[in-house]
Amino acid sequence: MTSPADLPAGVQADVPAELARLRGSIDNLDAALVHLLSERFKLTRAVGEFKARQGLPPSDKGREERQTARLRALSEQAELDPEFAEKFLAFVIDEVVRHHEAIARDHTA
Amino acid sequence: MTSPADLPAGVQADVPAELARLRGSIDNLDAALVHLLSERFKLTRAVGEFKARQGLPPSDKGREERQTARLRALSEQAELDPEFAEKFLAFVIDEVVRHHEAIARDHTA
Repeated sequence: MTSPADLPAGVQADVPAELARLRGSIDNLDAALVHLLSERFKLTRAVGEFKARQGLPPSDKGREERQTARLRALSEQAELDPEFAEKFLAFVIDEVVRHHEAIARDHTA
Repeated sequence: MTSPADLPAGVQADVPAELARLRGSIDNLDAALVHLLSERFKLTRAVGEFKARQGLPPSDKGREERQTARLRALSEQAELDPEFAEKFLAFVIDEVVRHHEAIARDHTA
């Protein structure tokens, strides 16, 4: 039995070898990204629980600004478009703040 | 001389030690994510150039559906919300298709 997770999404009979090779590497990076994002949400969940216990607000604009500045600088070193890095961080933080708000609601309920 | 990239965004004098520790780990994962995303865009740039040379269309709905199904399955294994993984992939692919369209325009120009 194979599950969708076992099948590299790039493997297809009618795809040129060069394209299949590139897609195989993209699929490997995507698996790594999913696992790192999962670890990141475990950490932000712990942050959310800590903030709820201490009565701290779920979001922290100063921290977000420092994260954005740092990721933009890191992106330039890594040859990633800093605009994309900033959009990516905003996308992830959006989800984190939603989680923190839910934790804060559970905590006061 | 320190640049914003050298300073962990979580380090602040007035932050409790537990919160600073969690933020330091989040910052390390973010650096890893930025570097993996950069590698991913290098691969998708190569895919875009290959497609432009072969006259293949920039986007491929069948491939995207297989990627989505695979990432949702991987997310369940990794304890990441599959809805978030799907939104994340759509966010990244949006950017990739924009790149591919630009490559295709350059190629025909």
